[in-house]
Amino acid sequence: MKLGRLNHIGIATPSIERSVVHFRDTMGATHISEPFDLPEQGVRVCFVDTPGEGTTAGTQIELIEPLGEGSPLQGFLAKNPLGGQHHLCFEVADIAAAREWFEGQGKHILGPTRIGAHGTPIFFVHPKDMMGQLTEIMESPTGAH
Amino acid sequence: MKLGRLNHIGIATPSIERSVVHFRDTMGATHISEPFDLPEQGVRVCFVDTPGEGTTAGTQIELIEPLGEGSPLQGFLAKNPLGGQHHLCFEVADIAAAREWFEGQGKHILGPTRIGAHGTPIFFVHPKDMMGQLTEIMESPTGAH
Repeated sequence: MKLGRLNHIGIATPSIERSVVHFRDTMGATHISEPFDLPEQGVRVCFVDTPGEGTTAGTQIELIEPLGEGSPLQGFLAKNPLGGQHHLCFEVADIAAAREWFEGQGKHILGPTRIGAHGTPIFFVHPKDMMGQLTEIMESPTGAH
Repeated sequence: MKLGRLNHIGIATPSIERSVVHFRDTMGATHISEPFDLPEQGVRVCFVDTPGEGTTAGTQIELIEPLGEGSPLQGFLAKNPLGGQHHLCFEVADIAAAREWFEGQGKHILGPTRIGAHGTPIFFVHPKDMMGQLTEIMESPTGAH
């Protein structure tokens, strides 16, 4: 396993609309996606681009808002009503090999490998096994980066 | 104000030593700095490099461990004993102009502008004014990025 690109950091928010105003008007972000729903994950999602070195793309900020009853974000927002940092997402070349790696390390993986917000396979590793970090592992988009 | 590079994400940990083992052996990081003390900030610090696009440098992970009595991290770790995401740090070209910008927006800035872990001036903005995010603003190193 080789550390891949930090694709995005997930930030939970009670309101994507207000977070977009914050990142646009206070922080000066210029590239913000349209929000979209991921109903099977119980979240609404919006990406804020940050610049990388030179003209490259940097790590994105993924704004996530609860969608529907029983969203996995409800507990987090009950503890952090303003929102806050929720997870880290690292890219890998091969999602199946990565899953096998983490399983071999005895890490608790949360549910099956599934399609994530960027349209590639992802899975999450439990924070208790990851020094407190809910960690998403994502297969790099083909041809990207 | 224009959104700058996401220089690093700060991750609080009860043990930099254990976090380094985690990022090296489980996550596969290959570039990890020697830890060093920032006594005036009450933290011990260590940087984990992540790759950016192509051959560029990506967003770093700043591991921070409490240093001394009354470290500002003690409250955070009391709530999150395993550690967790603590702050975001964005680069700006001119720290004085950025401070004036946030002050003009009515944001509560925590203390004076001071020298941060990368040797350039930094300040922190209170999470209550930043959608729950403790936000560090850092002047870009001269000649870098």
